[in-house]
Amino acid sequence: MNYKLSLQYDGTDFHGWQIQENGRTVQGELTRVLSLLDGRDVHVNGSGRTDAGVHAEGQTANVHLEKVFETEKLRNAINANVMNDLRVMAVEIVSDKFHARFSACGKTYVYRVVNSQIMSPFLVRFAHHELRPLDVEKMSEAAKLFLGEHDWTAFSSAQSDSQTRVRNVTKLEVRKIFNKQAGTDVIEIEASAEGFLRYMVRTIAGTLLAVGRGEVELKEITDAIETGKRPRAFVTAPAKGLTLLRVDYD
Amino acid sequence: MNYKLSLQYDGTDFHGWQIQENGRTVQGELTRVLSLLDGRDVHVNGSGRTDAGVHAEGQTANVHLEKVFETEKLRNAINANVMNDLRVMAVEIVSDKFHARFSACGKTYVYRVVNSQIMSPFLVRFAHHELRPLDVEKMSEAAKLFLGEHDWTAFSSAQSDSQTRVRNVTKLEVRKIFNKQAGTDVIEIEASAEGFLRYMVRTIAGTLLAVGRGEVELKEITDAIETGKRPRAFVTAPAKGLTLLRVDYD
Repeated sequence: MNYKLSLQYDGTDFHGWQIQENGRTVQGELTRVLSLLDGRDVHVNGSGRTDAGVHAEGQTANVHLEKVFETEKLRNAINANVMNDLRVMAVEIVSDKFHARFSACGKTYVYRVVNSQIMSPFLVRFAHHELRPLDVEKMSEAAKLFLGEHDWTAFSSAQSDSQTRVRNVTKLEVRKIFNKQAGTDVIEIEASAEGFLRYMVRTIAGTLLAVGRGEVELKEITDAIETGKRPRAFVTAPAKGLTLLRVDYD
Repeated sequence: MNYKLSLQYDGTDFHGWQIQENGRTVQGELTRVLSLLDGRDVHVNGSGRTDAGVHAEGQTANVHLEKVFETEKLRNAINANVMNDLRVMAVEIVSDKFHARFSACGKTYVYRVVNSQIMSPFLVRFAHHELRPLDVEKMSEAAKLFLGEHDWTAFSSAQSDSQTRVRNVTKLEVRKIFNKQAGTDVIEIEASAEGFLRYMVRTIAGTLLAVGRGEVELKEITDAIETGKRPRAFVTAPAKGLTLLRVDYD
């Protein structure tokens, strides 16, 4: 049976998604528990890797198990065996062909920024702290330049092993939202695409922050997209501000 | 000079407000840093103690310092010397008579409950998890019984050292609020009074939870208030669900 898992995690204390010898990872935790439950080594597919420190409000995984489990019981059995910063929110039985990564047709991330003198204890795990004042309107304007199908070489990791660096960004919005618990505004950069390259969302976020601080002109962005060369000011923003909001499937 | 401090803290890793020999406390941390800054032992007054595990979105403290500090500089100096689960949000210079506890004329707490099968990693630090289904309407109805001036002996700690156990509850509301980050509803019990006895809000919350589960009838509440005797079902709810929202001053 092929099981689809909907996951949430607070990435603060994880060494990212991908299983590794040392270090607690999301895939590692799920593999450990599911192998135990199925009585054999299983492979857990994620929709994609999230880096160390990146959170997920809606990550998706799938796993083929030999044993048959009731979906609620499987969900509860996994949750009972992992720490409370990782939770399986739902389990579904899906067709054998479903693959969390290859079946995905879209992904949405949010990058959160607190732009005030003080970082609230209620946001410190989930948002990046920017002390210098940001021009949110200018960031919004710049965000439009990232829309559409482009080669994103200038905005991805040099080690990116993807065959093509062309991706279609379908949404890139900057907004300010009041967080009641912290009593402060949070700037959210929301990005959707069929898929992203490694570090792509964080580098777009870092570039938009530089725009907001007045350090990068809009023309530099269009130039970077065209030439594939990244100016030094286009910094990759810290992982803790990034959250995978959802993965879409047909 | 008398400085008023507006504070936020995630209470998870604190042994409560009150300074103690061993164990990290909010008052202890502030006393350590402010004594260092003023070059002598200072006393930090809080609006009241919060128990271990209780959070604050709006706690107030005051401290008399011999040295004169610019308010922003004092705020930043404190924040630079405490961990990120405690933050001074603002510092004000106030009249010498101001006392965080004795000048307070009202306090508001919220008790948060997640009532679903799964506790989201984004709420696990700040909300109590109730697996059994709760009847929120019935809880709302019961909440009205707690309004007004009563002797709260049945709802306070046996060791409560207050001279009188009469308090005036001016607001007690139960509501359901959707938490977007967790993708789930949160039941909030909000309580205001001039002041509360020790464990009072958590015992009211625990009693309302028992009402919601159908284990306590409304008549038992009015009886307990009248007689001062607490039925066994009126359990003190866990600390982590409780947050001090704000302290009011004239």
